[in-house]
Parts: sequence; structure tokens; C-alpha cells
Amino acid sequence: MSKGLPKRSEDYSLWYNELVKRADLAENSPVRGCMVIKPYGYSIWEKMQAELDRMFKETGHTNAYFPLFIPKSYLSKEASHVEGFAKECAVVTHYRLKNSDDGRGVIVDPEAKLEEELIVRPTSETVIWSTYKNWIQSYRDLPLLVNQWANVVRWEMRTRLFLRTAEFLWQEGHTAHASKEEAIEETVQMMNVYATFAENFMALPVVRGIKSANERFAGAEDTYCIEALMQDGKALQAGTSHFLGQNFAKAFDVKFATKEGGLEYVWGTSWGASTRLMGALIMAHSDDNGLVLPPKLAPIQVVIVPIYKGDEELERISVKAKEIMASLRAKGISVQFDNRDTHKPGWKFAEYELKGVPLRIAMGPRDLENNTVEIARRDTLTKESVNLSEISIDKYVSDLLEEIQRNIFQKAFEFRENMTTEADTWQEFEDLLENKGGFVSAHWDGTTETEERIKELTKATIRCIPIDRKEESGSCILTGKPSTGRVLFARAY
Amino acid sequence: MSKGLPKRSEDYSLWYNELVKRADLAENSPVRGCMVIKPYGYSIWEKMQAELDRMFKETGHTNAYFPLFIPKSYLSKEASHVEGFAKECAVVTHYRLKNSDDGRGVIVDPEAKLEEELIVRPTSETVIWSTYKNWIQSYRDLPLLVNQWANVVRWEMRTRLFLRTAEFLWQEGHTAHASKEEAIEETVQMMNVYATFAENFMALPVVRGIKSANERFAGAEDTYCIEALMQDGKALQAGTSHFLGQNFAKAFDVKFATKEGGLEYVWGTSWGASTRLMGALIMAHSDDNGLVLPPKLAPIQVVIVPIYKGDEELERISVKAKEIMASLRAKGISVQFDNRDTHKPGWKFAEYELKGVPLRIAMGPRDLENNTVEIARRDTLTKESVNLSEISIDKYVSDLLEEIQRNIFQKAFEFRENMTTEADTWQEFEDLLENKGGFVSAHWDGTTETEERIKELTKATIRCIPIDRKEESGSCILTGKPSTGRVLFARAY
Repeated sequence: MSKGLPKRSEDYSLWYNELVKRADLAENSPVRGCMVIKPYGYSIWEKMQAELDRMFKETGHTNAYFPLFIPKSYLSKEASHVEGFAKECAVVTHYRLKNSDDGRGVIVDPEAKLEEELIVRPTSETVIWSTYKNWIQSYRDLPLLVNQWANVVRWEMRTRLFLRTAEFLWQEGHTAHASKEEAIEETVQMMNVYATFAENFMALPVVRGIKSANERFAGAEDTYCIEALMQDGKALQAGTSHFLGQNFAKAFDVKFATKEGGLEYVWGTSWGASTRLMGALIMAHSDDNGLVLPPKLAPIQVVIVPIYKGDEELERISVKAKEIMASLRAKGISVQFDNRDTHKPGWKFAEYELKGVPLRIAMGPRDLENNTVEIARRDTLTKESVNLSEISIDKYVSDLLEEIQRNIFQKAFEFRENMTTEADTWQEFEDLLENKGGFVSAHWDGTTETEERIKELTKATIRCIPIDRKEESGSCILTGKPSTGRVLFARAY
Repeated sequence: MSKGLPKRSEDYSLWYNELVKRADLAENSPVRGCMVIKPYGYSIWEKMQAELDRMFKETGHTNAYFPLFIPKSYLSKEASHVEGFAKECAVVTHYRLKNSDDGRGVIVDPEAKLEEELIVRPTSETVIWSTYKNWIQSYRDLPLLVNQWANVVRWEMRTRLFLRTAEFLWQEGHTAHASKEEAIEETVQMMNVYATFAENFMALPVVRGIKSANERFAGAEDTYCIEALMQDGKALQAGTSHFLGQNFAKAFDVKFATKEGGLEYVWGTSWGASTRLMGALIMAHSDDNGLVLPPKLAPIQVVIVPIYKGDEELERISVKAKEIMASLRAKGISVQFDNRDTHKPGWKFAEYELKGVPLRIAMGPRDLENNTVEIARRDTLTKESVNLSEISIDKYVSDLLEEIQRNIFQKAFEFRENMTTEADTWQEFEDLLENKGGFVSAHWDGTTETEERIKELTKATIRCIPIDRKEESGSCILTGKPSTGRVLFARAY
């Protein structure tokens, strides 16, 4: 580490970019808009994947894999779908390189042009529903509950590590059902799975809601979502679950024989969460010293740093440290002993703070004499000396990790509560967005025109119509027309 | 299931293709050469991934993720590398679609042409070494031990499910070292990891060896491999590990400051195994009734099928079945109770045979009376009635699963031994390849010319120079020139 991070209060955006790079999470690649996810960043993503995958399987889904490429004509089959994605598609047109005749080196071989161009998948509804046509004949084949972990490409002009990249990693669930009710139930269930994951593992409080028509997925009848709030007061969509109605079934002619002997179009859902969650995790909890990771997603939960002069002291500390490591590991806690002699303790302290390791245990010769260790919490940046004769270290640490997980959530929750404000006049609404940020809860007349006008005027969009909103009659913040309940506005990532 | 599989003895290739489709492992996608890996097939691949990933981590590697796209100019930086891959590259030339002016629908937008065309990665050495240049400054940054799970694309003209597809899934390890010795040690270690995985999990005996120059990876100094034998006597390369020397370090100018204060090029390795392993697994063990899966990779290890008339019998059998399930699950055995009333027991028996479930437990009313169950082994197709008062079912089943794992390996091992033959004359050599197949162990003069000539004459290639071959002087099977040891020839997938 050369010098400290930029401060959040001075330049939140620069702070984020620098943190992502310095904490070894990700970096830009030589290919415009594509990122390299570095080993430390990827190990956090792997922990997210493992938990989500477990939750998907517990709700009856299995994984499969569909092709990276989609024939151009497939994309066009669902009208609003192609409209939503055509402008950001990477297109494969040739399949071979050759040496140029004029010494320019390797060039695309013009003779190896594809008959039909291929799209690199921006999402897989089309190729999957074209496959489902062969998999589904009767009600016995339903429900079909499939998920895929994959890379997708959306050619974005302005990119940011994790938040918006041309290629990103994600999972996309694609399910098929015999009835509308069942498909909606699945859509809601998966929104709830995402919310549970965000709250219990990412320590990230989220609002569950439905998107307005304007923000809906291209090809969906309804988009359910979870929305989180970042420390700069901007919202971030952290997962979406789409009720597709019969749109893709109709586009790809997927019908099933009903129990009663009829023939009907299948009902569909799709739902996804991506490496964008990494951006949300970083921005929600981290501080000016670096990452703050919830223990449940931290690749290293505890680091032990020896403070010593000379080999003999290190040797004695190591014996004790290894005892502690063994007892923590037996409890399933991931712990690392950093006995590198290439770096000083102070450097290591800063490094593990930057990397967001939830607990640091320091041990020096005095600690050995007194049978103590110094335990430092990353979330609160507090330290305490603990006497090992008075506690059982494995229980102490595991309780503390749980306490940290709760505390990180609680802090984010209180922030979100403080940053959610009702506005009843246009003046209040503009003021809040300009001077406070966060979620602004306000009445809206339900039209796309008004929503778009509000976006033009304030850069705020409707993040969602909360699932649990109360019925409340009021007047639209912009037009004064009647409304039956508030929606959440915010500027968003 | 409509009718039985084709027989291996009549048409091995058709048997394979049909088995892959009927056992729900994979199917061809609408995109030429790309496959859909179906849920059952993918669940086997997930088990393979989990074991390999564990073994990679145990040997000190971490996962990361590098971009799907590679700038065309990068591919050209290592001369033999571009030669090896240029002819099978999918090329992205544009990044947007638009509606055509003449009503043809959606077309590639000619104005959205990329300044530099992008290659869809066929393998990632180039993009990874261009990144390593920034990651490696000094000996302290080495070794760098990184793996990636990813999809890659090689535009193949003739494809077969799992064995050769335009897109496939794989892992690719890319490591960087301070010395030649350490890099070679890593290369050998990873070949051994693959061999251990193949033998212990896939129940697939493999020969460890080194490739001849002709079969070497484009850009490597040496390619180590594991070679397996399929039931039709053809060989299949099941994993490769490459010693890259300093080739990619030189191509991408990756140098490190040595401990002694010098500046040297870094030494590299790369190693990969792919969904091709699925093809190997299927072809090595399966029979005319369907898949035979080694228990360690079987998604369902035990299936319980009730044999009943009416709800009351099913109810009584279910109680007992659930007891058995609970005790098997407590031992970590994956077990499924198939109480569907839509299919008859005979249909289910055939279905689970087709799917390769290692053990089937059948229970009827007579079994309930006698406190017995019927246990059928998939590998031997034998059945026995077992009295539950005389055994502990969890221990019995878990011992049996281990026995099956051993037996499947043993059978494949004996087959391989019987199908490995020495040839000392050209006549013998040709006869063996034509009439017996398998590995033919023979002397070779060490030249590429001879190897190529032998391939032209017999379609056999040198699969490898076995690691453990004995020194033995002899004369080349084709030219009669001197040789110091035998190599393994075979026709191969």
C-alpha cells in the first residue's frame, strides 16, 4: 500500500474505484469494459455463489448449461425483448483468422463469414425457451425449475468495476409452469430468496417491490426486485425476478397438454443476480480504511498476527497461535496465521483492514506471559485484551463473528431507515433528492409519462412499488393526480 | 423411453450419441456445434468440478476470472500459439444490432464496428499473461497459482456431444514461477492431480506421460497428459498440463526482480480439463442398458422403488423407506425415493439403469412381512435379498458403494491391461491397430516425420511417452532406426 484511500466524504466514486483495486478485488482488463476478478475478489464471489446455489437447490432447482451464442433471429422473436437488448449486443460474424497477404499480420478471414451472425448472450431467455419447446410436452413435464451460472455480455458504453461491465458473471433461473398462479408464486419466491440472501449473508437490508412498467425487464409482464441503499444515498438494484407471462412460450411456441386434455401455452419466470452484488457489498459497508466484510462472506474470518523480535519469540508465539488456529478451525472458522517476516505488524494491520478481515488477533511476548491476546474488530475498529484462561477462545470468537454480522446489518439498516423520507410536495421531493439523497417515498399518478418527466427533472427513478406498502390515498408529487399509495424514488446505480 | 439403446458391439458411436441424449446428459443446441448440458448431466459435471476444485485448493491454487474476449493482436504475440488457434476462433466484429431500412428485420449495425476485433477465448494464456505483467514485479510475488472455471470456444467443424464441441466448459490453471525447476514440478504435480482424480473418482485408469512435439500444446515446451482407453479400443486424452518455459513471459514481457537483484523472465505452466471428461466417463464404463456411474460421481447413489398395489400398501412401504432414507442420508449417501404413481416399477427399473444409479432398493409387501429389501447393483446387474434384521443398512450400503467404485475401476483397469499390447514389427503393429485396437506399445525413432507417416498409414498417433517407461533399446517400428524406449500409439478421440 502506497498511501491511504481517498475519503468517502470527499469523492465517493474515487474511493470505490480505488478500494476495489487496492483490496485486490478486481481491475480493468485490456478489453474495454471487461474486468479481471482477482483471486481475493473471486473468493468472496465464490462464497456468495455457494450460498445462493444452496438456496436455489433447497427450493427445488437444478443447474444446467445453455450455449453462449444465440442465433440473431432468435433474439427477434419476442418483440420487446429484442428492443431491450439489440443495442448492446456483441456480434460474432466470422470464425477464423488468417495471415494477411500484405504483411499486416493476423486478420479476420473474410471467407469464414457465418451464414447467420451469432449474438453473445446478454441473457438466455430466447435460447432456453427454444430448448424448452422440446422438453415440455405435458403437464407431467412441469414445473421445470432450472438455473444456470454463466457469463453474459452487454456492450455498455460507460462501465465501472462490478457495477456495470460489458461482461459479467451471474446466475439466471428460467422456470416453466402449468398455471399463471404457480408462475407468480415462483417469481415472488425467488425475490424472497434474494432478499433473504442479501439480509442474512450480505448483511444488506433490502426493500422488496415491483418495478414500474418503465423499469420492467424487456419481455416480462412484471418485474419483482430487491433494492438496497448505498452509503452515498444512491439506490442499487440487487436482484430481479420476472414473471414472463406466456410471452416467451408464445414466441417459441411452447405448449403443454393439460391434465384435462387441452393444449395451452406454458407460463414462465426468469430471475437473476450478478457480480453486481459485489459492488453492493463493497459500497454498503466499507469505510475509509478499506473493506468491511460480513463474517459470513469473508474468505478469511480471523487473522493472527504475531508481534515479535527474533526467531525465538516467533517460535514461542507460533506454538500458541497454532493452538488457537486449531480450535477455531474445529469450529469451522477460517483463520490465517501471518508469520511473514517480510512485513512489519503495522503494515499487516493496515493490510487486513483494507481487505476487510472481520477479526484480527495480535499476540506479543507480553501476551504470552499473561496468557492474553489482543482482539480487534474490523467493523467498529475497537480492540480489547482477552485473557485466555477466562474464556474459551473458539466460543468467544464465534460469538463475536455473529455479533459483527448482526452489527453490520444493523448499521446498514439504521442508515437506510434514516435515509428513507416521505415527500408530499414537489419542493420537498427535489430538496430531498438534492440535499439528502436516499429513498424518497412519494405519491405518483401511475403513468409512464410522469415517471419519465420526474427522471428528466431530478435524475431519480422509481426504484419500486414496495410489496408491503400501505394503501394511502394521496396526490402525485408532480401532477397532483390521485394515487393509492407511495412508491420509492431514488437516484440509482 | 421408447426402445432400447443401440448395442455397443453393433455401432459404438451411435450407442454413445443415443445414450448421451436418452440419459438426459446433453443435447445439441440450435447453434451449430454448441451443446445444452441438461440438468442430470450437469449435476455429474458439478460433482467433478467440486472434487477437482478441492484438489486445486489443497495444492495452493485460488480461483479468479479473466475476460471472455481477447484482443486479436494479443493472440499473435506468441508465434506458435496463434498458429495453433487462429483457424478455430470465433471473432466479434460488431457490438450492436439495428432494424434494417428495407424491412428485413434486425441486422448487424454496420456503424457499430469494433476498432479492434475480439476473439472469443479458445484458451486464456494471452490475456492472463498480459495481466500477470502487472501482478508480478519481484520474487515475492511468485509463485502465482491461479485457476479459472470458464467457457471457451474453438470453432470445430466436426463436433460430438462432450467430446468435441464448439463451446465447452473447462478449468484452466495458469501459474508463474521463479525457476524452471519449480515450474516443471508444478506441471508434473497437476498431471498427477488429474490422474488421481481420474482414478479415484472417475474410476478411470490412466497412463501418465509426455506428448511428442507433434501433439504438444501450441506455445508449450512440454505437454504432460493423462490418457485413458475407451471400450471401443480408442484412446482419449483426459487432461493436459503444459510446461510453458518462458515463452509467454517473453511474449508479454513478464520479468521479476530476483532475490539476488537480477531481472529475469518468469517461468510458466498451464493445465486444463474440460467437459470432455464427461465423454470419457460415459464411454469407459457404460453398457447396453445405459450409464454406469461410479458412486463417487453419481448425483443419486441409491434409489428406492416401492412395489405396491393401492394406497395402503404404498403407505406402509413409505414408512419403512423413509427410515432407510434417513439412515443412509445420515451417512452422507444421496438417496431418492421414487413413489410416483405415474410409472410402473418395471419402467422405473429401466429408467434408473439408463441413468446409471449405482444401487436400487426395491420393497414390496412381502419384503415388509419378512423385513427384507431387494438390492440391485448397476455395475454387475446382480440382485440379492437382504434381511434388515441381520445387517445395518447404512453400513451395508456404504460398503457396497465402495465395492462398486472399486469394481468399476478394476474392470476398466483389466480392460486397459488386456488392450495394451507390444508390437515389434510393422506387420504386428498394423494388425493390432486394425483388428484389436487399444494401446500399442512400440519403438519409435523420435522424429516428427516418422510420427506423421505412421499417422497417415494407420490413423494412430503417439498418445504419450509414458512417465514410467523402462529404458529398452530397440528399433523404430517404421524406419528401423534406433530407439531407447517404447511409446504408446493408439487411434484416439
